[in-house]
Amino acid sequence: MPDPDPRCDPTGQYGDIKLIAGTACPGLAREIAAYLRHKTGKKVGLAKRQIKKFPNDNTYVKLSESVRGQDVYIIQTLNRPVNDNIMELLIMLDAVRRDSAGRITAVIPYMAYGRTDKKDVPRTPITARLVAEMIEVAGADRYMTIDLHAGQIQGFFRIPGDVLTAFHLLHDYVLANVPLDNLVVSTVDLGFAKGGRKWSRELQLPLALIEKDRADEEVTALGIVGSVRGHNVLLVDDEVDTASSLVQAVNLLKAEGALDITICFTHPVFSPPRARPNLLQLQDKVRQMIFTNTIPLRPANRMPNMTVCSVAPLLAEVIWRAHIGVSVGALFNE
Amino acid sequence: MPDPDPRCDPTGQYGDIKLIAGTACPGLAREIAAYLRHKTGKKVGLAKRQIKKFPNDNTYVKLSESVRGQDVYIIQTLNRPVNDNIMELLIMLDAVRRDSAGRITAVIPYMAYGRTDKKDVPRTPITARLVAEMIEVAGADRYMTIDLHAGQIQGFFRIPGDVLTAFHLLHDYVLANVPLDNLVVSTVDLGFAKGGRKWSRELQLPLALIEKDRADEEVTALGIVGSVRGHNVLLVDDEVDTASSLVQAVNLLKAEGALDITICFTHPVFSPPRARPNLLQLQDKVRQMIFTNTIPLRPANRMPNMTVCSVAPLLAEVIWRAHIGVSVGALFNE
Amino acid sequence: MPDPDPRCDPTGQYGDIKLIAGTACPGLAREIAAYLRHKTGKKVGLAKRQIKKFPNDNTYVKLSESVRGQDVYIIQTLNRPVNDNIMELLIMLDAVRRDSAGRITAVIPYMAYGRTDKKDVPRTPITARLVAEMIEVAGADRYMTIDLHAGQIQGFFRIPGDVLTAFHLLHDYVLANVPLDNLVVSTVDLGFAKGGRKWSRELQLPLALIEKDRADEEVTALGIVGSVRGHNVLLVDDEVDTASSLVQAVNLLKAEGALDITICFTHPVFSPPRARPNLLQLQDKVRQMIFTNTIPLRPANRMPNMTVCSVAPLLAEVIWRAHIGVSVGALFNE
Amino acid sequence: MPDPDPRCDPTGQYGDIKLIAGTACPGLAREIAAYLRHKTGKKVGLAKRQIKKFPNDNTYVKLSESVRGQDVYIIQTLNRPVNDNIMELLIMLDAVRRDSAGRITAVIPYMAYGRTDKKDVPRTPITARLVAEMIEVAGADRYMTIDLHAGQIQGFFRIPGDVLTAFHLLHDYVLANVPLDNLVVSTVDLGFAKGGRKWSRELQLPLALIEKDRADEEVTALGIVGSVRGHNVLLVDDEVDTASSLVQAVNLLKAEGALDITICFTHPVFSPPRARPNLLQLQDKVRQMIFTNTIPLRPANRMPNMTVCSVAPLLAEVIWRAHIGVSVGALFNE
Amino acid sequence: MPDPDPRCDPTGQYGDIKLIAGTACPGLAREIAAYLRHKTGKKVGLAKRQIKKFPNDNTYVKLSESVRGQDVYIIQTLNRPVNDNIMELLIMLDAVRRDSAGRITAVIPYMAYGRTDKKDVPRTPITARLVAEMIEVAGADRYMTIDLHAGQIQGFFRIPGDVLTAFHLLHDYVLANVPLDNLVVSTVDLGFAKGGRKWSRELQLPLALIEKDRADEEVTALGIVGSVRGHNVLLVDDEVDTASSLVQAVNLLKAEGALDITICFTHPVFSPPRARPNLLQLQDKVRQMIFTNTIPLRPANRMPNMTVCSVAPLLAEVIWRAHIGVSVGALFNE
Amino acid sequence: MPDPDPRCDPTGQYGDIKLIAGTACPGLAREIAAYLRHKTGKKVGLAKRQIKKFPNDNTYVKLSESVRGQDVYIIQTLNRPVNDNIMELLIMLDAVRRDSAGRITAVIPYMAYGRTDKKDVPRTPITARLVAEMIEVAGADRYMTIDLHAGQIQGFFRIPGDVLTAFHLLHDYVLANVPLDNLVVSTVDLGFAKGGRKWSRELQLPLALIEKDRADEEVTALGIVGSVRGHNVLLVDDEVDTASSLVQAVNLLKAEGALDITICFTHPVFSPPRARPNLLQLQDKVRQMIFTNTIPLRPANRMPNMTVCSVAPLLAEVIWRAHIGVSVGALFNE
Repeated sequence: MPDPDPRCDPTGQYGDIKLIAGTACPGLAREIAAYLRHKTGKKVGLAKRQIKKFPNDNTYVKLSESVRGQDVYIIQTLNRPVNDNIMELLIMLDAVRRDSAGRITAVIPYMAYGRTDKKDVPRTPITARLVAEMIEVAGADRYMTIDLHAGQIQGFFRIPGDVLTAFHLLHDYVLANVPLDNLVVSTVDLGFAKGGRKWSRELQLPLALIEKDRADEEVTALGIVGSVRGHNVLLVDDEVDTASSLVQAVNLLKAEGALDITICFTHPVFSPPRARPNLLQLQDKVRQMIFTNTIPLRPANRMPNMTVCSVAPLLAEVIWRAHIGVSVGALFNE
Repeated sequence: MPDPDPRCDPTGQYGDIKLIAGTACPGLAREIAAYLRHKTGKKVGLAKRQIKKFPNDNTYVKLSESVRGQDVYIIQTLNRPVNDNIMELLIMLDAVRRDSAGRITAVIPYMAYGRTDKKDVPRTPITARLVAEMIEVAGADRYMTIDLHAGQIQGFFRIPGDVLTAFHLLHDYVLANVPLDNLVVSTVDLGFAKGGRKWSRELQLPLALIEKDRADEEVTALGIVGSVRGHNVLLVDDEVDTASSLVQAVNLLKAEGALDITICFTHPVFSPPRARPNLLQLQDKVRQMIFTNTIPLRPANRMPNMTVCSVAPLLAEVIWRAHIGVSVGALFNE
Repeated sequence: MPDPDPRCDPTGQYGDIKLIAGTACPGLAREIAAYLRHKTGKKVGLAKRQIKKFPNDNTYVKLSESVRGQDVYIIQTLNRPVNDNIMELLIMLDAVRRDSAGRITAVIPYMAYGRTDKKDVPRTPITARLVAEMIEVAGADRYMTIDLHAGQIQGFFRIPGDVLTAFHLLHDYVLANVPLDNLVVSTVDLGFAKGGRKWSRELQLPLALIEKDRADEEVTALGIVGSVRGHNVLLVDDEVDTASSLVQAVNLLKAEGALDITICFTHPVFSPPRARPNLLQLQDKVRQMIFTNTIPLRPANRMPNMTVCSVAPLLAEVIWRAHIGVSVGALFNE
Repeated sequence: MPDPDPRCDPTGQYGDIKLIAGTACPGLAREIAAYLRHKTGKKVGLAKRQIKKFPNDNTYVKLSESVRGQDVYIIQTLNRPVNDNIMELLIMLDAVRRDSAGRITAVIPYMAYGRTDKKDVPRTPITARLVAEMIEVAGADRYMTIDLHAGQIQGFFRIPGDVLTAFHLLHDYVLANVPLDNLVVSTVDLGFAKGGRKWSRELQLPLALIEKDRADEEVTALGIVGSVRGHNVLLVDDEVDTASSLVQAVNLLKAEGALDITICFTHPVFSPPRARPNLLQLQDKVRQMIFTNTIPLRPANRMPNMTVCSVAPLLAEVIWRAHIGVSVGALFNE
Repeated sequence: MPDPDPRCDPTGQYGDIKLIAGTACPGLAREIAAYLRHKTGKKVGLAKRQIKKFPNDNTYVKLSESVRGQDVYIIQTLNRPVNDNIMELLIMLDAVRRDSAGRITAVIPYMAYGRTDKKDVPRTPITARLVAEMIEVAGADRYMTIDLHAGQIQGFFRIPGDVLTAFHLLHDYVLANVPLDNLVVSTVDLGFAKGGRKWSRELQLPLALIEKDRADEEVTALGIVGSVRGHNVLLVDDEVDTASSLVQAVNLLKAEGALDITICFTHPVFSPPRARPNLLQLQDKVRQMIFTNTIPLRPANRMPNMTVCSVAPLLAEVIWRAHIGVSVGALFNE
Repeated sequence: MPDPDPRCDPTGQYGDIKLIAGTACPGLAREIAAYLRHKTGKKVGLAKRQIKKFPNDNTYVKLSESVRGQDVYIIQTLNRPVNDNIMELLIMLDAVRRDSAGRITAVIPYMAYGRTDKKDVPRTPITARLVAEMIEVAGADRYMTIDLHAGQIQGFFRIPGDVLTAFHLLHDYVLANVPLDNLVVSTVDLGFAKGGRKWSRELQLPLALIEKDRADEEVTALGIVGSVRGHNVLLVDDEVDTASSLVQAVNLLKAEGALDITICFTHPVFSPPRARPNLLQLQDKVRQMIFTNTIPLRPANRMPNMTVCSVAPLLAEVIWRAHIGVSVGALFNE
């Protein structure tokens, strides 16, 4: 049912709402459009556009509908192939800007290069800042994303943004589906210590922290701060890449006497080639893996014990509130 | 032999010279370094750097040597995989800038997206301008490139640049190796008409122009303005992509009574999958194909009748002149 | 008691429409206003403003009406005196911006410096890019122009623009008034080869190309690629400057056996002192000259065989569509 | 026939009006809100926000209400503590910008650093320009201020602004309350000569000018250009700092035979510690001091002969006109 | 122990010095070059360049010498034809920047649009700021100018500048050539009151101020604050435009009993057509007119009682100090 | 006769080195200058400058020495009064930039607003990014700082920077002065978990983590992950503000059976009024407090068990390497 909002006028100060999807997450984009159709009772669809690669490997974008004076939301997640998806987003932004859109929001469910967010060693780039600037230069007026690897990445943007979290979504699912008795929250490493603290506080559960020692890409040492013996464990993180750390963490938890293990995180990066064999291992060792669709799950990686919570309602609701100009924070009672 | 230049001091106003190569044209980069070593008698090498992709498909760059206060030349051509090579260039620029380089020049033998240089139809991007701005934002102080698809792309850059031409290089080779008697210059289409005129004027030869009709990607109609019957033909262009136009042009020239055909152009794009069969066809039909190494030639595309003229001496010479601050135009007697 | 808000009308996101004319093309500006009055039934007029030169040759602009929160279109063509007209445009932009306009569009029927769009020789400027940046810095949010000398000049602007063409206008006139039997399309030089191809394709006529050799300003040699003997000729170009090339082209066409010649182009630059004697010559030699009023025709240059097609309806229609935020491309069925 | 344009939204192109006050002039902000409530009949209030200093002396701002898509006016004067008030303004701008406000206007009744507006001696800053740029960088789309120390400071801003004057306000008060017979206008120094001229012209009174010699901070010499003997004097200025110049001016006027003295200026800076004893002196020597509340008057500085004219109606009226997009100049019949 | 730093290059951090003159003040530019040749014993000349107008009134610039890596000084005053001279300066800047100059300084003896430095009435531009930004956008790294109409115009530039004064030059001439006995300093209007004060203080002479009433362009009323009867007068100003104010001032001074009058100012704008008859009048009425060559004196305006003090040594000296990086303030003992 | 150029010395591409100190950390600045004098054998001193507040609370800066063409390092820490110190830094940057410095580095031992580096709750600013942009806008070419609160703050800057760490300094002191037998590393909260891990890894000691629950400013709950009973503890952090958390942590450690406690951190913020009583408590409870002088220690806060390690040699060494253009990373064997 559409909101009874006094400013709920689709021809408001930023023009009509217009959704455009890149090629990276077409399913999620369709879900967002469907949600908005249902909510507003209006004919909101994904704008027709042509995206292809020329024989010379140059990405080509052509909009089939005018966006002149409209409130445009470009939906593109930044998973693999990362650089192609970034360039496609930038080129879409350029095309939309040059077609005189009223306002342009880059909706990026999963941001790439979040781990290259500072110079840990000399003579390295800060690619996350570079990508933020490129999105601004290409023409975005605003951006929207979910669970940045580090909150500070917000500060890499000059433009305003809605940095959302899937925490509430995942939290509600866990509350409804995972028995809290005898449960302990654990993180995969110290880097997500604060995230783990949030889970343990909200669910009023004890917290354990796993330490890992990352030399180059190799995780070589593990230990647990806190106790899991005889407990079920809710293992939380923000994203899962090759799932190697996860496998090691699960093995360690088991070795330390943990019982049932449930895994919960936002972004299923699942990088080949290592992710699939690791996921197969986890299928046997853990009770359930809960995550979102900020990145499309490839069929080969789908396992029976996986639950995918869609972020489409969250993104659609925030897009709508951004469009009509009402508080997004209120959505989370903040 | 090194120039007797009064300002020929490698520790001049922009610091020492430093070459860094991306992964797109390592051979050309090594040639440039070798030329500069030979010319200057100094130990000029390619800086050590690490470039790789993380499992999550994020490009990673780390310089192994400091570039602080130095005059850095980043050598990266923008062929296939185009978006990866662009992002790699941008990330290298960011790393070099954040390491406090004295001056940074992006040396880009072949510029990508040159054909997306204007809005021919509505609601399209101008990606060439976007790429130019990204290079500037990432940190280049200057750029250097060869035979842009359109000269106006220079104006997409705010930063100064050395836009060079391989014309003299190719011209000298043709003059020395192709009999001029009975020769006619021809272009593949009207878009290179002015380029063809330059060849015909310099060699004092007649000019013929081939018309083609490009609908979408399909070249559907051909005709010749001017006469080639009974003549040998020098068929010139700036770049060759799938070589389909070239095959059609050669077939048309043959059908119109042309004798021996020599092909000459700057950039061997040679896009798969169509390029290889087309090149095989051309191997039988033309006397010689002459082009440069602005893009590395893949072994599968190498044919016996091909001649590759290296642009390394040209780029090396201009890098040196830019470094010591003397005229580049003088190199071409302009 | 609250004010009765005079602007609370259904005009939309960019405020009311407001036209302001510079001194370069007052007649065209009045035509645009008249068209919009007729089309919308509203009282659309040219805003009152004072433009003069102080005794010290400084241009002075003062708006007599507020443009606060309005959708402003500044109409100024960039013909002779070119630098005065550019500065006047920039100063108007500054005044309108500082008066808090809602959105500002620079409507520039003829763009100056289009021929200085690349560095053909070293150590020259790219003035077309410079002018584009100055228009942006002075405060334009968008621009609108007709038949740029090179399409790539669009890429010199960061701001969105509507780059229109008078082709449809001229094409419709030719179709209705020039007999197509026995007609051949010809261009004045190779630089307009693609433009000529468009004419020949749309009218389904053969194409001939004239070559010219420009050394400095002097056109010294001419030849025709293709045949015109026994045909009437439609000689097309984008702009006519001194008309010297045109005279040479007409003479050559006549010498090569062409019959009736009709000339058709967009921008009547007609630079003194050479234009007038050349136009007088053409009056005798050609059947008809067809062009637009992107540049006002000085009375001394008006000849009996001239037809001026007004671009006012085109510009007015696009201004209106830009104002209400609907597709401009749709106007051309694109 | 005009299009039936569906875009009718009485909320306006910049969203709803929203006032936010910093901590520097809370009383004035409340007056502005009250005026707008009365004028519009709407419920216009000051947005709830939290502003405090952390123990580590870092200023903290948190908005308690969303400003998404709204037309925000941040009211903050830049009196003592100057740097704290500037930083508080900038941080509020950042918070409002990052919350996706529709448009942001910085309402700054008194601008700081107006006297550091040029390099009188080498190796000094132009802090007024720096502050203007910081306000722009932090996110203001527009600014509003009263009686800048030098009109040229408008040119330090790129963004549009409403630079208002309290002259009409003070003039009307003087006209109604100060006998004009036998009155002479005088300025405190030559720097306000043009301002004094405006007063003398509007009131049709003679003008006298006081010269002062400022070496470092010490005013060491005084003289009068013109005559005041036997006249009452209206001593005018733009701002009063320590009031030392004023005391000297009054003493000189008395010594030169002036009778009753009335002082009139816009900004009561009244810098401690010297202002209070000087104001106590002036209490005995002058008939009346008339000024505005662009800077809050501290209780200790309040004297019986002071009259404070509120700028709240002026600012509120201009805020309203800026909001609905009608001329501000018309407010002053300009 | 300090490092043995290998970076010793007597050419300096900004490259060799290079002077380029526009067409506005060729004589002054030659004088500057001659001074630098004499001072440095080096072969400093004006770089060869081509500046012309194409038949279509587009300004064209081509450098005949490379400026790569050099410390370039572009000398162009901004007198009549003002807009042509501004555009010529900007185009030269673009050409020099794109040729990879090491550093670029715009040397502008007389800045145009200095009187349009604030919005005195609503809906006007601040053209002086616009010109400053254009100079920056075109590519100047620094600027150099003499006696700005308002010191605040320095703050319109972000780039550093050397804002010089001809005061010392004129002061020294007056001291050596004008008898100080019985002399009074006077200004033409209140706007130059502070400038007049500086003259009176340095020469230890009394000051008189002339008031004028400027309605539109018409000066309609005059009066003197202070006394000149029986005194010789030194009438000072920053620039003289049509000289109408000057004639009125001289007439008033004479009417008020002044004896010999000497006029002294920096910029001889001398705008036609009114300047010449006014100068002819002044020739009879004043003892001497002293000014500089920041603007070339047209032969028709040359009168026998004029003395032109050249600013070439001042500019040359500052150029040299800027080039080698030593204090300019020290030149004036500041 | 040519000038003997006083700057024509082997100092290189950025000019001579020049140090300028703000008022926030004069002692540290003097130490840096002394170190550089000793190291280089040159007469490196702090440039003379005047910094004061005008009676109206406006900060004033005047350099007493020219910085033209020099390599300037402005040393200013950003402790209390924070906003005054920030503004003083920005104004110094503006003054140095406008005096045409060759290169400007802001040396900021302690960066303010590091804790406002992301939007944890809606409608808050990211002040750390704002401060970074202001430093860039004011004119810094580079920055240098020590132990940022979050490494990502590097990405808030576009300009290159040297982000140093005091870890090596503190580590070496601990190694030499604290017995490692029976020692456990602990952090004050989970936020410094990674920092604690670094200490434990380098010293090869076990790690314990203290959890704290921060609601508003109040730390309300504490717990330890890991064991400290019977161990000496090295309690590490990046900065200490009011020291309340520290007192609670120490109390908890004691309660959990810890023996001797040594505290080690970089930045002694020590905010009044709570810091002093807390420090007095700690004096009795801990063996030693080790920290640096990035912020001057106020005499009232000096306790007998404190050890201050100076960062002056570190900053001086890096300034020197930045000046001569050699690797800083090499200083740390990275």
